[in-house]
Amino acid sequence: MVKQAGFEVTTRARGTYLIDRQVQEIVAASGIDTGLCQVFVQHTSASLILCENADPQVRRDLEVFMTRLAPDGDPLFDHTQEGPDDMPAHVRTVLTQNGITLPVRRGRLALGTWQGLYLWEHRAQGHHRHLIVSVWD
Amino acid sequence: MVKQAGFEVTTRARGTYLIDRQVQEIVAASGIDTGLCQVFVQHTSASLILCENADPQVRRDLEVFMTRLAPDGDPLFDHTQEGPDDMPAHVRTVLTQNGITLPVRRGRLALGTWQGLYLWEHRAQGHHRHLIVSVWD
Amino acid sequence: MVKQAGFEVTTRARGTYLIDRQVQEIVAASGIDTGLCQVFVQHTSASLILCENADPQVRRDLEVFMTRLAPDGDPLFDHTQEGPDDMPAHVRTVLTQNGITLPVRRGRLALGTWQGLYLWEHRAQGHHRHLIVSVWD
Repeated sequence: MVKQAGFEVTTRARGTYLIDRQVQEIVAASGIDTGLCQVFVQHTSASLILCENADPQVRRDLEVFMTRLAPDGDPLFDHTQEGPDDMPAHVRTVLTQNGITLPVRRGRLALGTWQGLYLWEHRAQGHHRHLIVSVWD
Repeated sequence: MVKQAGFEVTTRARGTYLIDRQVQEIVAASGIDTGLCQVFVQHTSASLILCENADPQVRRDLEVFMTRLAPDGDPLFDHTQEGPDDMPAHVRTVLTQNGITLPVRRGRLALGTWQGLYLWEHRAQGHHRHLIVSVWD
Repeated sequence: MVKQAGFEVTTRARGTYLIDRQVQEIVAASGIDTGLCQVFVQHTSASLILCENADPQVRRDLEVFMTRLAPDGDPLFDHTQEGPDDMPAHVRTVLTQNGITLPVRRGRLALGTWQGLYLWEHRAQGHHRHLIVSVWD
């Protein structure tokens, strides 16, 4: 049976926010030992990534990579009425993922040693981001 | 128990095709109230995205972004025997997703307000695209 | 009920490694007829793709595409202490996927005719890569 719970992340600005702990709490509360867990973000300008969790420079380098690939104010884009960072935020979301599914083993997320689960806010300003976590066995 | 159904989308040309309704019908027919739904495309030159569904310009901007990133006839590519749009179509598919998993709540896809589910045809010409939808609780 | 098994791929160098057979064996052993299968890689510099499995040139072209997008030694990156290929490997992983979910039909992965499931090693040197396969119905 699928067990679902939601939570919210209030972002301060563009950047990555570690959400391992919140998701792990929902997995623990489910009582599921061996199964799967899906995390889903209900937005089109924020996404999820699994990323190296040791050196914060990795996430800063990802940010500058995305800035080179789809810079704010890119003259390529015509959808600009919500700001110069809006269309780049949609592009970044489409190139990463709204949902990530993770195996659950022995009641915990079976992440690799260096894998952290991050919410990536792609808008310049902070937002309230809604997430849904589903756990099943 | 997983319930599965298939459907086909006939694309006219490169571009995005909203498939929320077809997937929602399969979810409704499943009778599942709280669970998950996975949509899968059985091709290597078409993919799925969740994208802002209000302003069609967003999807046109995504298209021009991909055209800049991997243009048809890009001299970088050697796999050209199926046409100048074939290898760019594979690149676009790999950078997006063949499968998207969505939470189901109260018998419906738990999409955010501005999230639309689109099939993205990456070939210049239209094709028949086969999709498999799995729903479980 | 979710059935889980792990396997390891020893990569020789950067490149793609077909893993259909290993995953299919785990699906067959599960005895599941209609369901889903998730494959997950527990690393941040290797990922999974579904890619055209007929012409090997497609995967070579994907490789050169990624090399243009995020070349080794890119002066953009500051996270360089693990080598000039480390940060590009993280970027490539984030732009593709750590996990892929596939429908299972009649006891087999419901891949399209031209879809192959590949582990993509993004580091220049080979590594031991751990994967977890979950199958459910």
